[in-house]
Amino acid sequence: MARIVMKFGGTSMAGTERIRRVARIVQRQQAAGHEVAVVVSAMAGETDRLVNFCREANPLYDPAEYDVVVASGEQVTSGLLAMHLQALGCKARSWLGWQLPIHTDDAHSKARIEGIDAEALLASMASGEIAVIPGFQGVSDKGRITTLGRGGSDTSAVAVAAAVKADRCDIYTDVDGVYTTDPRIVAKARKLKNVTYEEMLELASVGSKVLQTRSVSLAMKEGVRVQVLSSFIDDDAPAADTIPGTMIVSDEELEGLDMERQLITGIAADKNEAKVTLTRIADRPGAVAAIFGPLAAANINVDMIIQNIAKDKGETDVTFTVPISDLARTQALLEERKDTIGYYRMLANSKVAKISVVGVGMRSHAGVAATMFRSLADRGINIQAITTSEIKVSVLIDEDETELAVRVLHTAYEMDGE
Amino acid sequence: MARIVMKFGGTSMAGTERIRRVARIVQRQQAAGHEVAVVVSAMAGETDRLVNFCREANPLYDPAEYDVVVASGEQVTSGLLAMHLQALGCKARSWLGWQLPIHTDDAHSKARIEGIDAEALLASMASGEIAVIPGFQGVSDKGRITTLGRGGSDTSAVAVAAAVKADRCDIYTDVDGVYTTDPRIVAKARKLKNVTYEEMLELASVGSKVLQTRSVSLAMKEGVRVQVLSSFIDDDAPAADTIPGTMIVSDEELEGLDMERQLITGIAADKNEAKVTLTRIADRPGAVAAIFGPLAAANINVDMIIQNIAKDKGETDVTFTVPISDLARTQALLEERKDTIGYYRMLANSKVAKISVVGVGMRSHAGVAATMFRSLADRGINIQAITTSEIKVSVLIDEDETELAVRVLHTAYEMDGE
Repeated sequence: MARIVMKFGGTSMAGTERIRRVARIVQRQQAAGHEVAVVVSAMAGETDRLVNFCREANPLYDPAEYDVVVASGEQVTSGLLAMHLQALGCKARSWLGWQLPIHTDDAHSKARIEGIDAEALLASMASGEIAVIPGFQGVSDKGRITTLGRGGSDTSAVAVAAAVKADRCDIYTDVDGVYTTDPRIVAKARKLKNVTYEEMLELASVGSKVLQTRSVSLAMKEGVRVQVLSSFIDDDAPAADTIPGTMIVSDEELEGLDMERQLITGIAADKNEAKVTLTRIADRPGAVAAIFGPLAAANINVDMIIQNIAKDKGETDVTFTVPISDLARTQALLEERKDTIGYYRMLANSKVAKISVVGVGMRSHAGVAATMFRSLADRGINIQAITTSEIKVSVLIDEDETELAVRVLHTAYEMDGE
Repeated sequence: MARIVMKFGGTSMAGTERIRRVARIVQRQQAAGHEVAVVVSAMAGETDRLVNFCREANPLYDPAEYDVVVASGEQVTSGLLAMHLQALGCKARSWLGWQLPIHTDDAHSKARIEGIDAEALLASMASGEIAVIPGFQGVSDKGRITTLGRGGSDTSAVAVAAAVKADRCDIYTDVDGVYTTDPRIVAKARKLKNVTYEEMLELASVGSKVLQTRSVSLAMKEGVRVQVLSSFIDDDAPAADTIPGTMIVSDEELEGLDMERQLITGIAADKNEAKVTLTRIADRPGAVAAIFGPLAAANINVDMIIQNIAKDKGETDVTFTVPISDLARTQALLEERKDTIGYYRMLANSKVAKISVVGVGMRSHAGVAATMFRSLADRGINIQAITTSEIKVSVLIDEDETELAVRVLHTAYEMDGE
């Protein structure tokens, strides 16, 4: 017997037939002898509908009232799933965020979980009752409803799993696991049996949208074993244990699981960044601070930064990337400060893509970066910028060459499956 | 300055533009110097949508989970109205049923309010904040969400008004008051300035669907002055004080307000009853109990009962009415018990209408019933059954003659306006 937290996203909860299917998946886990809690998202589209009402009410809406409105979507699906489970003969009940409670800070619309009172939950699960918990929501110490920010239900599930010391947190999505790269780009992409928290974080932050980054960080911090798997499996399929997706584990556990692991775990592409270059900046102390200080103050998330010092001229070009959604604000901010910073021209290009190779094996192996640069050069793909971390090498290239680059690298690192 | 509770129904809350209009009506009351709390229904159609999900989930759904699901509709509109009020520059916040709290028993899906903690609410209103409260919902002593049954938001509003000792409870609906009869039937129907609780109860129970019966009973018990008025007034109209609807008051208050009051207050028609006749029942003790005992046990609400004893034969016919929705169950129950009861034939007719004349003046005046019977007879309308109460006379007639009967009586009692 194991204690399992299962989480289902909005696509899995979209309407009566799909919720019934989810109920059957949950029932199978309980029938296999496990203690089960389920965390659910709102029906696909519902949160957007509610957010839209808020925007129409007041473009500068009160985040506390926003939370009252949008938290209702998960309230509905949690009640409905409890009913569907009861219809299958299971004992089940819903536990809203304020009922457990799930304590959060009072940063409405982007709250952080501070703790979950697991006592009632553990008693409920131990009695054979399936606990159904709306994701995305909690309650502040002022007794008001809070929400965790879009995609927060993954984080709710991991937090519940940590609170009840679950053996596993199964995240059911519309994909059946984490792949070496996007299967829509590379048909020979392989599903990974295991991936480490760090790798998942790097993959999530560079465009593999399987899990919310925050949920992976929390799982790593709390040591929660997370499994990603598909809710669109056959009705007659056996319990999830026998059709595993991808398990997200610690470095230590991975070594035990997978001695023969490859150098590179995955390749991700991210088209959501734009490149900005400021030319002929004076090469003096404080010049770079004058650029990035104001961007940081405006909460613009700068990713890659490249500076080439041309010592002989006393001038330099600075290139960096920002999310495309922040490009207009970035340009406006830097235009205002043109004299303070002292640059000659500002160039912007949103037609770029960041290609990243990720793998914990990289730490103990040389040559990953060299392979990357040579493979891309062989196909005539120009590298505009490079950054590295302990388990990742990223390059910025022309957006039109995204798919080609991913395919070339997938083959170069010998990741192609059958 | 007055303390006012305002209540808006689902049609008034259906979508952004209508909620904005409601916010302006509320703002005007506050601008007039009043302390204001607002009770809201879910958007029109939303509760039906949610109830439908519950039925699809499990025809025998758990009422506790049903309440979790359906209470979300009012949660959404309360948050949205708070936002709309803030957009107009008002201080406003939502207070959910479990936050005040509104204590109820735990008869889920048809709970009764046991009390409301008004302390936080009074402090909020005194500080100039508009309190927005979802109708229809409360919380049980087990800490679970409850709902009051369909139409329960009227009851919530009256209960809140009683708890904060409001000077007035304004119920905004899609009609602008209580009329002498249905204006769609009689063009000359007049809006009543005042009506007593008892009259309103009789009118509500015989088909004038302006207010939920329970809310009127509660208002009578708690002495809450209730005003019915329209939310579909001009945007530029002055505060509601100057465009009154119908005020529902006590007998005593009415006497002070309206010395010249007419004998009859209103005429209502109800097509939702069906007539059942059992013929040739033995005229012996216990015969009638054998009919109505089983119906009461099955929660079938029997309204009119007529028995004509034909002593010479030792047999009698018994006629009664039940809601049309219970007719099939009634017939099945009585068919099963045919031998026990000992009747000859069962006749059923759902093509009947109950016409009622209502008025507190009736108590001190003779002749109301006589006028009714003569007026109907003059137009050839046959009376199938008669019942009376202290302030009401009802007759059962052929459904096809409903409109004619209402018009004839409206004229006969000299109620026609200009």
